[in-house]
Amino acid sequence: MKLCTLRNGRRDGALAVVSHDLQWVMPAHSVAPTLQAALDDWQHVAPGLQALYEQIDQASPPAEARPFDPREAMAPLPRAYQWLDGSAFSNHGAWMQRAFNSPALDTSMPLMYQGGSDDFLGPHDDAVFVSEAHGIDIEGEIAVITDDVAMGTRDEAALGHVRLLALVNDWSLRALQPREMGLGFGMVHSKPSTAFAPVVVTPDELGAAWSAGRLQLPLHVSINAHTIGRPHAGCMSVGFGRLIEHAASTRRLRAGTVIGSGTVSDPAEGAGSATLAEVRAIEKVTLGEVRTPFLRLGDRVRMEVWSDSGASLFGALDQRVCIASPEPGLHQALTLRWRG
Amino acid sequence: MKLCTLRNGRRDGALAVVSHDLQWVMPAHSVAPTLQAALDDWQHVAPGLQALYEQIDQASPPAEARPFDPREAMAPLPRAYQWLDGSAFSNHGAWMQRAFNSPALDTSMPLMYQGGSDDFLGPHDDAVFVSEAHGIDIEGEIAVITDDVAMGTRDEAALGHVRLLALVNDWSLRALQPREMGLGFGMVHSKPSTAFAPVVVTPDELGAAWSAGRLQLPLHVSINAHTIGRPHAGCMSVGFGRLIEHAASTRRLRAGTVIGSGTVSDPAEGAGSATLAEVRAIEKVTLGEVRTPFLRLGDRVRMEVWSDSGASLFGALDQRVCIASPEPGLHQALTLRWRG
Repeated sequence: MKLCTLRNGRRDGALAVVSHDLQWVMPAHSVAPTLQAALDDWQHVAPGLQALYEQIDQASPPAEARPFDPREAMAPLPRAYQWLDGSAFSNHGAWMQRAFNSPALDTSMPLMYQGGSDDFLGPHDDAVFVSEAHGIDIEGEIAVITDDVAMGTRDEAALGHVRLLALVNDWSLRALQPREMGLGFGMVHSKPSTAFAPVVVTPDELGAAWSAGRLQLPLHVSINAHTIGRPHAGCMSVGFGRLIEHAASTRRLRAGTVIGSGTVSDPAEGAGSATLAEVRAIEKVTLGEVRTPFLRLGDRVRMEVWSDSGASLFGALDQRVCIASPEPGLHQALTLRWRG
Repeated sequence: MKLCTLRNGRRDGALAVVSHDLQWVMPAHSVAPTLQAALDDWQHVAPGLQALYEQIDQASPPAEARPFDPREAMAPLPRAYQWLDGSAFSNHGAWMQRAFNSPALDTSMPLMYQGGSDDFLGPHDDAVFVSEAHGIDIEGEIAVITDDVAMGTRDEAALGHVRLLALVNDWSLRALQPREMGLGFGMVHSKPSTAFAPVVVTPDELGAAWSAGRLQLPLHVSINAHTIGRPHAGCMSVGFGRLIEHAASTRRLRAGTVIGSGTVSDPAEGAGSATLAEVRAIEKVTLGEVRTPFLRLGDRVRMEVWSDSGASLFGALDQRVCIASPEPGLHQALTLRWRG
C-alpha cells in the first residue's frame, strides 16, 4: 500500500492512504491518526490500512477519496524518533577519494551517522539555509522505516522489520562538513533538516523491484529541470538488512526508525550522480577542475523514482533553495568561525 | 514545577506532576496526556500544569495524589525527536588529552554530537549491553529540554527556550568509540540508549542554582555505593545558551529537543569524576597506570543532584548493568569486527 501525511495544522499531520497511481487520497483517521501511531502498532493497524487502500485503489474510488495534491503532503513522518543514515554506495566513496586524495575509510562495517529527525521537510517545503557560502548540496537516497528491532538482530531477520520505503533528500552543507568530520563527533551543522517525497510504500508494492534488500530502480535527480543523474539504487554495496543489523548492533531500535542508504551512486557510464559533491569529484578527476557550483538561492531540486511500468513510486521531491535573513552579524560570525 | 512520566503500558507513558519534595505524584492527563504533548504547546499547557503543581505541593495534597515511587517512572520523555549532546567541560577534555596524548580538539565552537533518542531508559531500567568487552561506561550530565528554537537564535535568547532541566546518564561503550570517532561519522555503536532521572524541573524551581545558563550544583555519582565523584555542574566552559545557539546554527530545533552538557567535570581537588573514562585518565597521569576497570555485569550506578537545602532535585538515577544473551556467534563476530 501507499501512505502519506496530510497537513492539518498539527505537528504530526493526518495519516492518509494514496492510490497506487497517486491520483487519489483518502483520510485514514478511522484506523490511525498519524503514521507514527500506525508504526507503533503496525501488526494491528496494517490490515485496516490495507482495507482502505484496496477501496481507494478501485476504478471508482469511494466518496471520501479526493484527488491527491502532493502540495498538501508533509513528510510522511513530519518528525521521527530516529534517523540513521548509511553511506552504502562504495562508488560514491571511491570518487570522493580519487578526487580529493582523502584516505580510504575502513569499510569492514557499514558507514552510518545519526541525523536530526525532529524537523523533516515535506516534498514541496522550501529548504531554508543560512548562507550560500555553506556549500548547499543534495543527497538523493532511498530509506526504509522499521518497526521495533531487537538489539543484535542479524541481516536476514532485520529485513523483515522493513515496513515502509521512502525517497529522501539528505540536504548537506559541504563547506561545514570537513571540520565536523575531523572532530569525530559527527555531523550537526553540516546536516540540516532532511526532506521526504510525499508517499511511503510497503515492500509488497514493489514486486521484483524490492530484492536483496535493495530497491532495484534508478533515482532521477534534476536541478533547475536539468538532469544530473539517474543512478540505480540497486548498486548498494550492502543492502538494507545489513544497515539495520549495523544500527541495532549495540541497542534496540524503536518503531518508526528511519534508515537511509546514503547518496545513491552508480558506476555505470552516464549514470550521473544524486549529489553535487560527486558531480564535482568526477569533474575534478576527468576534467582536472571542479566546474559545477553548489546550490544557490532559488535553485530547484527534483527527485523521483519511476517503476519499470513508468509509474511514479513515491511522488516527487520538488524543493526550492531559500536563504534566511539572519540577525545582522550572525552570518559573518558563523562563517568566520567555520573557516576556523 | 516538577514533572515525571508514569508507566501506563504505552510508549510515551502518562504525564504527572511531582511535589517539590518528591513525596507525591498526581496524574496530569486533564492538562496534557504526555510530556511531549505539553512541550508541543507549552505556552498554553504550562499554566494548567502549574496549577496542579501548586495543589500537590500543599501540606495536605489532593485526593488524586499518591506517594511517588520513582520505580513507576519512565524517562520523562521515553522517546524524543532530538538528543544533541555537548561536551562543554574543558576539564574533561584536558584530562583525556594528558592521559592519552590525543591531539587538542578545536574548541572555537562547542563540541556536540547527535545521539539516538528513540529509546530513552527510565531511572531504574536495567541498562542492557552486548558485552563487557565493549568498555561499558557512564557519563553523568545535566540536560535542558527546549521548545521551538528558530535557526540562528543567539546565546541569550536561546536560554529563554529552556523549559525543563534533566539529569542524564549518557551510557558509552569506550572500546567502540575510537574507531567511530576516527571515521568522522560520529557515534552510533558507542552511544547506546541514554538514561534519565525520574523528574524534570522548570528553571524557576532552581532559584539561584540556575544562573549563567548553568546548574550551579554538584552531581553525585556512585558505583556499587562507592562515590566516584561530586563534580560541580556549574563548571561548564560554555553555558546551555551557547550550546542551544550552536545546535540551532544551521537549522531550527523543534519542541522537545534535549541538549546535554556532556559529562560533568570539575578541576577542583577531590571533586572526582562523573565518568570512568576520566577516573582512568587521572589514574594514568597521576599513578602511571589505569587501575579502575569499566563496568561489569551487575554493577549498579547511582546519580543524584541535591539542592543547597539537601533536597533531591531530579530524584535518583539508579541502574544495574546487564549483559544480553545474543544469538550465538554474534558477540564474537562483532568483537572481531570492532577490533578491526
